[in-house]
Formats: sequence, structure tokens, C-alpha cells
Amino acid sequence: MAEKEKRTDVNDLGEFGLIDHLTKSFPLLNESTVKGIGDDAAIIDSGKMLTVVSTDMLIEGIHFDLMYTPLKHLGYKAVVVNVSDIYAMNATPKQITVSIAISNRFSVEALEELYSGIALACDKYGVDLIGGDTTSSPKGLSMSITAIGEVAKGKQVYRNTAKVGDLLCISGDLGAAYLGLQILEREKQIYLSTPDVKPDLGDQNYLVGRLLKPEARKDMIVQFDQAKLIPTSMIDISDGLASELYHICSQSGVGAFVEESGVPIHPDTEKQAIDFKFDPITCALSGGEDYELLFSIHPDDVDKVKYMPGVYIMGEIVPKKDGIKLHTKGGNIHEITAQGWKHF
Amino acid sequence: MAEKEKRTDVNDLGEFGLIDHLTKSFPLLNESTVKGIGDDAAIIDSGKMLTVVSTDMLIEGIHFDLMYTPLKHLGYKAVVVNVSDIYAMNATPKQITVSIAISNRFSVEALEELYSGIALACDKYGVDLIGGDTTSSPKGLSMSITAIGEVAKGKQVYRNTAKVGDLLCISGDLGAAYLGLQILEREKQIYLSTPDVKPDLGDQNYLVGRLLKPEARKDMIVQFDQAKLIPTSMIDISDGLASELYHICSQSGVGAFVEESGVPIHPDTEKQAIDFKFDPITCALSGGEDYELLFSIHPDDVDKVKYMPGVYIMGEIVPKKDGIKLHTKGGNIHEITAQGWKHF
Repeated sequence: MAEKEKRTDVNDLGEFGLIDHLTKSFPLLNESTVKGIGDDAAIIDSGKMLTVVSTDMLIEGIHFDLMYTPLKHLGYKAVVVNVSDIYAMNATPKQITVSIAISNRFSVEALEELYSGIALACDKYGVDLIGGDTTSSPKGLSMSITAIGEVAKGKQVYRNTAKVGDLLCISGDLGAAYLGLQILEREKQIYLSTPDVKPDLGDQNYLVGRLLKPEARKDMIVQFDQAKLIPTSMIDISDGLASELYHICSQSGVGAFVEESGVPIHPDTEKQAIDFKFDPITCALSGGEDYELLFSIHPDDVDKVKYMPGVYIMGEIVPKKDGIKLHTKGGNIHEITAQGWKHF
Repeated sequence: MAEKEKRTDVNDLGEFGLIDHLTKSFPLLNESTVKGIGDDAAIIDSGKMLTVVSTDMLIEGIHFDLMYTPLKHLGYKAVVVNVSDIYAMNATPKQITVSIAISNRFSVEALEELYSGIALACDKYGVDLIGGDTTSSPKGLSMSITAIGEVAKGKQVYRNTAKVGDLLCISGDLGAAYLGLQILEREKQIYLSTPDVKPDLGDQNYLVGRLLKPEARKDMIVQFDQAKLIPTSMIDISDGLASELYHICSQSGVGAFVEESGVPIHPDTEKQAIDFKFDPITCALSGGEDYELLFSIHPDDVDKVKYMPGVYIMGEIVPKKDGIKLHTKGGNIHEITAQGWKHF
């Protein structure tokens, strides 16, 4: 009698499709909820200021490989990834909660390493560790971090507010973390055969450093404030430029073009990409985890960003019908497809 | 040459000792951080009101067994557990974030079930789902929920503020969820042999219902407000009365006694405990997951709670030197030792 139950694979929807599908029927009941699901962080009206909340889960074997990720770096990066989402709202992170689930292969000393990295990042970004949960896990290490920040009313920046004619900017070079990952994957066998060799914070080359010890662009939020600039839209590069640009465009109902010559790529990235026989621009577009800020500005604000150190103007927002395009150095036009890092 | 690294097992510290150990050196840098680690929730000063934040991680195989926990119930309970921590601060939950990590054995339909339970609880407790993360996991299902609430300044209630002479109260009966778990563990074989039999929300007996569909005591916070009562300390019963009482006493620097005759135990709990050859009071003291509120009140406030439905006065706060004691019905005095549910 029993009918076979319908079984849809989560891969049929993809990560973002899945979230949309599962959460679309949730109403927002509270007046204080200013922004729900769909941006780098949610926003709550707490009276004088806006409270900004972002959360991320990091799973061993999916988001990190402890074979080449020292626990101290992992702790540091876990905080960076979360505060980066707060900065992407033009807000300042103030507090974090850290929950961890660990199997019994982790010693107290290993956790001390993890927390020493968390402490370093808390100090650097000025955030307080205010809570969390510690539990056991049947297998591996999982972390869940929630970052809480604040922003003055009216200064918050969303993904869905880019306008045609806005200039598209990026806070720094792209693709390095992706190549750092490729190097570490290649070197994994070396680590395996000599487990006593531990990478340390001071001795990484640029690419590996961008992967293992990324920084969130706190300085950009400070610069925006000093220049009295409020970007028209913003997102941080966690899944790759192509994917983040797709989010801005689809949510804002616009298109965009990117000049290949305007996309900043570090010389080490360029060289390593060629060594691996990758196209450097593809690494910049599809690699992730750079944690730079991708933002759009009103064209009248161009002088405000022109001399901001490290900021590159690399394209423009165009009507939706014109799509999302790359103008190559060779004069060709390619469509940019959303293609971040797929975890499923 | 390599020295053998020191390896301390996390069990040597226990869950609470481990959190203390890992977080003791974290300073609180921001003025807005009112309460950090160590209570049911953290508190942030957001200007007009206080923002209350609590977070919990739920791991398959540690916190729940999908063999007898329908996904809808799991989703519902995951929200309840978190909003309960907010109520335990005398605050009102307003928003939650839900992050899940899932292995590929979970279909979209299974996740719909999970989220339908989350939606039910959001509706019941008036909270908005405002964010989260969805990722894959090499094994099983993990959830991390952060609940955010608010409370007027001065109305928040901590664990560490019980005073000698205060009366110890509980919002409802204890031990039922623990016996519900014992029943389900016994019945697991039946579920295994007939996987099509699914328990549904309306058809549970009291004990299993207390485990699978617990409720958080929103109504108590409303009653406190109506009666103009602010408890002197409060905590929710997640790990068991003995463990929670220990937290209040050790953090407040006091002792307590509990009258066995004052501890509310449901007739079904009493009967089932005896069937299992357990002592009912032991189930009430050491069983967990009842999500009742344990609180202390100033003796002048006794008339305010006397007629609150479901509230029992079961003991008193005494000087620290008098310890934490149970006065049995038989006239004996036993020491109560902190003994919650150990996950490690």
C-alpha cells in the first residue's frame, strides 16, 4: 500500500536555491526585523542603532582540511569569515558566539590552539566572545560562529540596491586564495609523510597566506566613513567574484560588465595560475575566499574612491537585459555565469 | 628530538570546565557587552533595550536519534531549546538564525519536514527566521541555532544573583522528558523493524511528548511581567534540576535546600519511574530537557507566585557553607551533586 515517497536530491536545487525553497514561506512577524534572509547579514532595529547578525558553519572535510590547516589559523579564519559579512553591510562587528562540536580525537591542547587563533582575531577586529556551545561530535570538528555588529540607521548597505550607471569596485586582488588552496592540495602528500612539519603564521608565501590567514576589510569601512561614502550595494567575496556579482545583479534587478583589465590580480597569482595552466582571470572570477569587498558606488562618488588605497574600479552596472558580461583584454565579450564554490 | 606533545583529554575538564578553560583569557572590549559567557544567554546594550543572544548546537547521534525523532519534531524542539534560554533571562525572543549541515542522505522533502517544525515553533513563539547557513556534512545532520531577544534594561535576570533567604521555585513538573527518552530507547527496536510507523504530533503520551515536543515557558515571562515580579535568579532546565541548581548556587556564592515533597513530579512520571525501577526524585533531579524555569524570588514576593498556575515553591537559598541539599520525604538530608547529562 505504501506509496514510494518522493525524494528530491538537494543538488537539484543548489545551496542558494535550497535556502530559498526552505525559507520562502516564513513570514517576518516582528517590527524590529529590518532585513531577513538573503543578504550577508540580517538587520534588527534595536532602537538607536541597527543590530547586524551573521552566522556561518564550518565543517571539517567540507570547508577545511586539518591536514594543512593549523588549528590556530582555522580559529582565526573562522572569525574573519564572519566579521567580513558584518563589514559587507557597512557595519562594525562587536560580538561573536562560537560553538564547536568535536570528536574525542581532539585534545584540550588542540582546542587551546584553536581558541588562540579565535583570540587573535577577536583582538584584531575588536570583537568580544560572548557565548557559544561546546559539545561532542561522532566525527570531526564542526564550528558555528555568529557575529553581531552595529551600524547607524541609514548607513547599512544591502546587496539588492545597485543602480544602472553605478561603478563596480573591488577592495583588493582576487584569485590568490584559490591558488593557495591548489598549492596546499598538491603539498598535502608532503605533510602526510612528515606530520611534524607545521606551517606557522609568519612563514607563508602570499597565496597560501591569503587562504590560511585571510583578513576582513575593516579598514574599508573606516575609509568609507571618513570619505562620507555609502556604497550603493556591497557583498564580500566568499564564493568568488562571478557568484557575488550574480547575487548583486539578480537581487538588484540589474546587469553588469567587468573589464578584465580592471580586475586586480596579484603577480604571484598570475604566475602561479600560468604554472598550473589555469587562466588567471578564471581564478579571479571563480576562486573564492578572498574576503575582499565588492561594491558599487554612484558615479558622482568616483573621486571619493579614486585615491582609496587598494580600491579598483573594474566595471559598471547596466540594465538587466544587457546581462552580466566580461570585456576581455583581447576585445571579446563573455557571459559571466554564477559559479562559486559548490559544497554539495 | 621531538618531545611527545602533551595530550589532555577533554573529559578531564568536563563540558563546563572546558568552556571556562578555553574562554577565561578572553577580555570584553566593547562597552556594549553587558554579559558575556556564563549564563543562559549573553546581553548586549543596544541603546534603548538590551539585546539577548543565545546559541546551541545539536548534533545527530549526540543530541538526537533520528530513529525515533521525526524531523518535524526535531525542528520544533531545536527552536524551543533556544528560545527557552532567552526566556531564562526574563527576555522575549524575537529572531533566530538556523544553520544546518547535512549529508547527502537527506532529501529536500526531509528538510521540508525539518523546516515545517521550525516554522511551527517560530509561529508559536513569535520569532522571525532571519538568517542561517546551509552546507553539506560528511556525515549526519548538525544544527546550530542562535536566538536573539530583547528585554527592558533592569528587567534581565541572571544566574549569579540568588540571595540567602530567597525562595526556590519551579515552573512545572520534572523528570518526564528523561523517562520519555528511556521509553523511546526501549522502543527503538520496534521502529527499526517497522520503519513506516511514524509518531505524529497529536498522538504522544505525556512522557514521550515532553521529550519530543517540549515547550518553552513563554507564559511565565508574561506572568512575571503582569505580576510585576522580577525573579532574583533564573535558569532553564536543560541538563537537570541538580545541575542547574548547582550553576545558580556556585555562581551566586550560595547554597540551597530542596524539599523532596515540593518537587513537582507528574503521576505518569512517578508510575513509569517505578516500572523502570528508578527513584522518581532521581529522575526529577538528574533527568534533563524539561525546559521548565528554575528561579528564585525574594521572600516578600511570595504572594505574587503563590497563585501562579503551575508554579511550585520547593526550597530556599541558604548560605554557601550549608551546601546544596535535598530534604527527603522520609526526613533524611542528602547532598545534591551537579549531575546533568554528560555528552562527552
